[in-house]
Amino acid sequence: MATARRLQCAPVFERIDHIGVAVADLDAAVALHEQTYGMPVVHRETVIDQGVEAVLLDVGENHVELLRPLADDTPVGRFLARRGPGLHHVAFQVAEIEATLAQLRERGVRLIDEAPRIGIRGSRVAFLHPSASGGVLTELVEPATLHA
Amino acid sequence: MATARRLQCAPVFERIDHIGVAVADLDAAVALHEQTYGMPVVHRETVIDQGVEAVLLDVGENHVELLRPLADDTPVGRFLARRGPGLHHVAFQVAEIEATLAQLRERGVRLIDEAPRIGIRGSRVAFLHPSASGGVLTELVEPATLHA
Repeated sequence: MATARRLQCAPVFERIDHIGVAVADLDAAVALHEQTYGMPVVHRETVIDQGVEAVLLDVGENHVELLRPLADDTPVGRFLARRGPGLHHVAFQVAEIEATLAQLRERGVRLIDEAPRIGIRGSRVAFLHPSASGGVLTELVEPATLHA
Repeated sequence: MATARRLQCAPVFERIDHIGVAVADLDAAVALHEQTYGMPVVHRETVIDQGVEAVLLDVGENHVELLRPLADDTPVGRFLARRGPGLHHVAFQVAEIEATLAQLRERGVRLIDEAPRIGIRGSRVAFLHPSASGGVLTELVEPATLHA
């Protein structure tokens, strides 16, 4: 254990970027987060290839991402049918997503996305496989603003 | 909608404090987060009245809280039996937990804890009812260090 501790590597993730929440009623979920929790809506986008309408709200430097499936036969649609509304994934912010993916691959982590794809707000994102991350669907996000 | 936007309230939460992850194998989960993700372990505590052994790791100013149930007939034990390992709850950091609970109660949010109780690391915590928070088990955390 002492040896393992000494081998510990530098932080891979900078912070929690967001939690992703699967919702059936997007208007009700936006109202809860905006009116009751006081989180400002900062972005809204329909992502056809992921089959979701996504709403992003700020909470400090972190975010909540509300996800409404566009159809039942989408990943979020199947999640809702199986589990109902609730926590869907966590996303960690990274500075250089290709380097992080290479590092994780080297450490034996199974990836869903071998290369980053475009997420909401022009970010670059990639998902790890839940089987590699303790049952937690885990996303990496390199925000577009870090390129500026 | 424009009216609703104007009525929006000040932020209630300061940031995501942590995500809570239910795990069956705590050593494996700690190894994943510490060795593969490079998150330092900052705290470990057995909380008898919540029926968990908890390990807290840093990720920027946020945390990951790994939760191993002490027995099957505990909330996390039942969660594991029903859903398997994965995302269990989200916790938001607040500056003054009593004031936040009063504010949320006033806005009609159903609470599990009407008054704060002691969480790990001497924090004060309270849970909202998932039925009031879109299926997401939601915790408020006032860290002990904010009292200093």
